[in-house]
Amino acid sequence: MDSNPIVKLTELFRHFPGLGPRQARRFVYHLLAQDKSFQDQLVYNISNLKKMVLQCPDCYRFFAVSENHQNDIRCKICTDKTRDAKQLMIVEKDVDMEAIQRAGSYSGHYFVLGGNLPLIEKKNSAVIRLAELKNILQSKIKNGLKEIIIALSASTEGDHTADYLRHELISMADTNNIKITILGRGLSTGSEIEYADTETIRNALLNRH
Amino acid sequence: MDSNPIVKLTELFRHFPGLGPRQARRFVYHLLAQDKSFQDQLVYNISNLKKMVLQCPDCYRFFAVSENHQNDIRCKICTDKTRDAKQLMIVEKDVDMEAIQRAGSYSGHYFVLGGNLPLIEKKNSAVIRLAELKNILQSKIKNGLKEIIIALSASTEGDHTADYLRHELISMADTNNIKITILGRGLSTGSEIEYADTETIRNALLNRH
Amino acid sequence: MDSNPIVKLTELFRHFPGLGPRQARRFVYHLLAQDKSFQDQLVYNISNLKKMVLQCPDCYRFFAVSENHQNDIRCKICTDKTRDAKQLMIVEKDVDMEAIQRAGSYSGHYFVLGGNLPLIEKKNSAVIRLAELKNILQSKIKNGLKEIIIALSASTEGDHTADYLRHELISMADTNNIKITILGRGLSTGSEIEYADTETIRNALLNRH
Amino acid sequence: MDSNPIVKLTELFRHFPGLGPRQARRFVYHLLAQDKSFQDQLVYNISNLKKMVLQCPDCYRFFAVSENHQNDIRCKICTDKTRDAKQLMIVEKDVDMEAIQRAGSYSGHYFVLGGNLPLIEKKNSAVIRLAELKNILQSKIKNGLKEIIIALSASTEGDHTADYLRHELISMADTNNIKITILGRGLSTGSEIEYADTETIRNALLNRH
Repeated sequence: MDSNPIVKLTELFRHFPGLGPRQARRFVYHLLAQDKSFQDQLVYNISNLKKMVLQCPDCYRFFAVSENHQNDIRCKICTDKTRDAKQLMIVEKDVDMEAIQRAGSYSGHYFVLGGNLPLIEKKNSAVIRLAELKNILQSKIKNGLKEIIIALSASTEGDHTADYLRHELISMADTNNIKITILGRGLSTGSEIEYADTETIRNALLNRH
Repeated sequence: MDSNPIVKLTELFRHFPGLGPRQARRFVYHLLAQDKSFQDQLVYNISNLKKMVLQCPDCYRFFAVSENHQNDIRCKICTDKTRDAKQLMIVEKDVDMEAIQRAGSYSGHYFVLGGNLPLIEKKNSAVIRLAELKNILQSKIKNGLKEIIIALSASTEGDHTADYLRHELISMADTNNIKITILGRGLSTGSEIEYADTETIRNALLNRH
Repeated sequence: MDSNPIVKLTELFRHFPGLGPRQARRFVYHLLAQDKSFQDQLVYNISNLKKMVLQCPDCYRFFAVSENHQNDIRCKICTDKTRDAKQLMIVEKDVDMEAIQRAGSYSGHYFVLGGNLPLIEKKNSAVIRLAELKNILQSKIKNGLKEIIIALSASTEGDHTADYLRHELISMADTNNIKITILGRGLSTGSEIEYADTETIRNALLNRH
Repeated sequence: MDSNPIVKLTELFRHFPGLGPRQARRFVYHLLAQDKSFQDQLVYNISNLKKMVLQCPDCYRFFAVSENHQNDIRCKICTDKTRDAKQLMIVEKDVDMEAIQRAGSYSGHYFVLGGNLPLIEKKNSAVIRLAELKNILQSKIKNGLKEIIIALSASTEGDHTADYLRHELISMADTNNIKITILGRGLSTGSEIEYADTETIRNALLNRH
């Protein structure tokens, strides 16, 4: 790495998702132009992030320590007894879970998988939290789990991951009388018939109601 | 209208959907640069378009006269006895019907509505072929119709039109034991959970399988 | 070509610059949905386009016959005695000349070259009006021509064409004491220094004033 | 500010130019997913940025302390005796200077103005380094300055700032026989005549050569 601190910080910023070299460099100059109090706040919040944020041992989402009043190391959603213990939704990442929460029509539990499987990859279990998922499923089953909802993106990688999960979970599910479902496909808001792909039209027809 | 033929033809071209003034003008210069044989072909094909193309009195799609070998004034799809007479799909326009045909998973009949209802409009029946639809439904019912599939775009106008159609057709449908369905909503190909809107997430959840 | 008139006309429309297959097909359906009077107008104006539009034998631009009141076969600009006969601007196409006219700061004559030279092409003179240009230059020189302004786009092809023109015209120009110039390069409206390419920055520096 | 550290850091990230709320949140989750060594590096480099980076008292650009071997508090460019002391180029921001350096055709000195003047603003001198510029000009004049090149973006704000600078500097410049120039305008790389605006065409004509 370059010994020039501007270049060095630019390179660190480039690790963030979706940030090109020019915008990363502009970030550094922006920081240089800020007063010390902004930099101090930034450093303080980055330094303490892992202390102030826990990763839930049940669903693996990140959450603020302050969120939980009961000294529980689990997150607010996993400890919420009003939520439906019969459903577990598997999402790829934290922000997906937030999108589902915003939609406001799901009241079961979550599991954050941590990624999608790349299409060509041998060690599948390494990139997603499969062992952790299987582990948590044991206790969920004891608590009356009846459905696993695979809620991944409608992409080739999402489908590949969903297939893999189904394959890995099917015997445990069958044994315990648990349904494995995936999110419905069809026209999403704004879809026009004229421009819809074959797959979407087929699913929209299949799921007509 | 301007008496300048370049300006005049530019203005005529501007009537075509999605064509701005500059592209329309470029079309005129393009025409001027072509040899006479191209212009002759164009004039010939525009002049004869309505003679060589019929509008099917059953489904209201446009089709080539040559398409039908049996001297039937109805289109190939409406006269195809292998297609399922129990289903009628209502689409907005010809190209929507073509997209459904390309998808290859529907084998019933069609009806081209001719448009969507604007959200604020008094004379609803004027902009869409409602009377024609009701008329054709009478004969379809005699032929064993069991389902009307409303296949409009997943937009505010599409939904508004679907609601209106359902309201207009419901008693006729109930009397004759016909189901009225709409295309399924959910994730369309490429949808990412993170960016999906509330409506799409709700439908994807509802239609999970 | 397909015997289906919808397909046939779609293919003809696809010859127009910037028109994809779907938009071309939508044009056909649009035409089918119009009343006969629109189609008649369109056919009339296309049929008569070449009769009502002349190509100026001096500058090779297309112009409405009605534009000229003096029964002159040359265009309004070439016959306008208030325009400066000392300057001739070479543009690629008619719409470029119109853009220059709109800018309102040039009062000399024009010559429409009819294209740019492709980068890899043997018969250069075939795709642009070089012989016609050389020919008209003879009479322009007699009328006191002092400057040839090459006004092509700032692209690789534009530059290649400009180089070629300069090479072809230089001895005639030198003999007759005519300057050959090209349009100035630099920051165009909206250019930001941060995103400007090397070439543009160099030219902006060179042409600083 | 929210006490939730994820929300808090998201809000801090949103201060960076061009970062929306969703991308800012994704940055936080990205940070949470990194190992401690990455966070430590980031904190270290942000904390030490101002210590390791100086602002040159002559040109006001930011530069790495390590850049200068001679214990000079001024930057490498301002202390480079091979550069032409007769020219001073005024740019808006550090990255603009870097773009000019990349172009490689300027060898004079720079001054980073720190911004453009907003179009409606009373206290002009507050947002740009006018006092600092006037100050440094005094010493530059003693060293033989002959030209001030105003190298701002070709935008309304850039032009407004250039006008203001010219007005503020003109008498000092005249007294000392210094030219004030601005970057040349014209076609920038990729400009097409057909789509060029009036201003650009006029400048391209004026600066033809």
